[in-house]
Amino acid sequence: MRKIKLTIQYDGSAFSGFQIQPEAKTVQQEVENVLGKVLKEKIKLQASGRTDAGVHAIAQVVDFETKNEKMTPVQILKAANVDLPKAVKILDAKIVDSSFESRFSAKKKTYAYRFYLSEVELPLLANQSLQLKKCLNVSKMKKAARFFVGKHDFSAFCASKSGRTDFVRTVFWTKISKLSSFVETNEFVFEICANGFLYNMVRIIFGTLIDVGLGKIESKQIQSIIASKNRQRAGKTAPSFPLFLKKVDY
Amino acid sequence: MRKIKLTIQYDGSAFSGFQIQPEAKTVQQEVENVLGKVLKEKIKLQASGRTDAGVHAIAQVVDFETKNEKMTPVQILKAANVDLPKAVKILDAKIVDSSFESRFSAKKKTYAYRFYLSEVELPLLANQSLQLKKCLNVSKMKKAARFFVGKHDFSAFCASKSGRTDFVRTVFWTKISKLSSFVETNEFVFEICANGFLYNMVRIIFGTLIDVGLGKIESKQIQSIIASKNRQRAGKTAPSFPLFLKKVDY
Repeated sequence: MRKIKLTIQYDGSAFSGFQIQPEAKTVQQEVENVLGKVLKEKIKLQASGRTDAGVHAIAQVVDFETKNEKMTPVQILKAANVDLPKAVKILDAKIVDSSFESRFSAKKKTYAYRFYLSEVELPLLANQSLQLKKCLNVSKMKKAARFFVGKHDFSAFCASKSGRTDFVRTVFWTKISKLSSFVETNEFVFEICANGFLYNMVRIIFGTLIDVGLGKIESKQIQSIIASKNRQRAGKTAPSFPLFLKKVDY
Repeated sequence: MRKIKLTIQYDGSAFSGFQIQPEAKTVQQEVENVLGKVLKEKIKLQASGRTDAGVHAIAQVVDFETKNEKMTPVQILKAANVDLPKAVKILDAKIVDSSFESRFSAKKKTYAYRFYLSEVELPLLANQSLQLKKCLNVSKMKKAARFFVGKHDFSAFCASKSGRTDFVRTVFWTKISKLSSFVETNEFVFEICANGFLYNMVRIIFGTLIDVGLGKIESKQIQSIIASKNRQRAGKTAPSFPLFLKKVDY
């Protein structure tokens, strides 16, 4: 029995999210099917975490166990990529120790949220970047983004609390920077790195930052919103499609 | 009668090219239909040039005449964008002199061709950028790209000569630069600016540059390929989807 770690990239717009659901096209199902065919056994993937429908992954990490000892990781990668659809490919494959767990061994995860300021929705940024109004105050958003850094109870930024008891996460850093976009000069990316994320946490944080940019919330209010642990105090959940799982560190 | 100039952006993967064809979804047809509905009259667009199926436009320029004197260009833009599909939007609209012609008044056109070096085809660059092998020699391609600059007979880089007699075009500049890509660090863009382009000219030039990068053609051979006026001497026609009409100058 060997354990293989894969780094995979996918275009979230082609899937109903990562995790298997009945009668839905999911990343997990596609990859498990193809690996099963390549390795001639039933494969069960473990991922660093689920991603919602529409969310992209530049580098998602998954692992699986296989009895097949003949194929090298590179051979598995090549054979699987031939059969995988264009919207999901394996970037890297390596053998890992049996103690490795994509989800629980992860030390840090980085998400990125793309947005641009324009009066017109740009066709060439569809499914990749969120159109926001030109009047948005990005410097206020930058200031507000810093208040998320640290070890906090993020209950106010969690969509569903069912079955969970631990809402404390440590955000290592956040950043809003101008993107050298090929299509649009007024494009930005919000990045957030933490030891883990609650359900919809990045999307609710970004929704709250939009409210800051629009002047509905003051930057300094972020601290009291976090302290309130009240989902009603935070902003709306921002759309899923401009969100990218960028990196998982182990 | 007023003449209106529009700047439009489109995702070429959604269309069978710019120009109207029977039973095909084309950019021209979509925009003419929507403008016809907004202005309540039959609208006929003139474009700076056609683009092939799959080719994107960051900023294509078109014009049309209208008897409607009531709506301002901004009102036309806003009303049309509501009805246009996500894959094509009007970025700018203004009244121009009746002598203006999108095609014949154009002084310069800039096309961009995106490519990246990777062993795996990246899902998040699908329909936008061409995957090429890591062994490609980009510095040789940069050197070769310079030989296209100048006033030349580009017969060797023209797909179909039917109905044409003038194959002389002036290339003002070419450039291959690293793209600060959000997804992939090894991405580049080839840009070419000329007073006009022959049919498939950019795609054949880029196909020839790929052969240079692969070592099949030497950089200095470009001059003799141009001089030969022989399509057989140039490289293959590169795929359409990584090509962007970037700018039209008047």
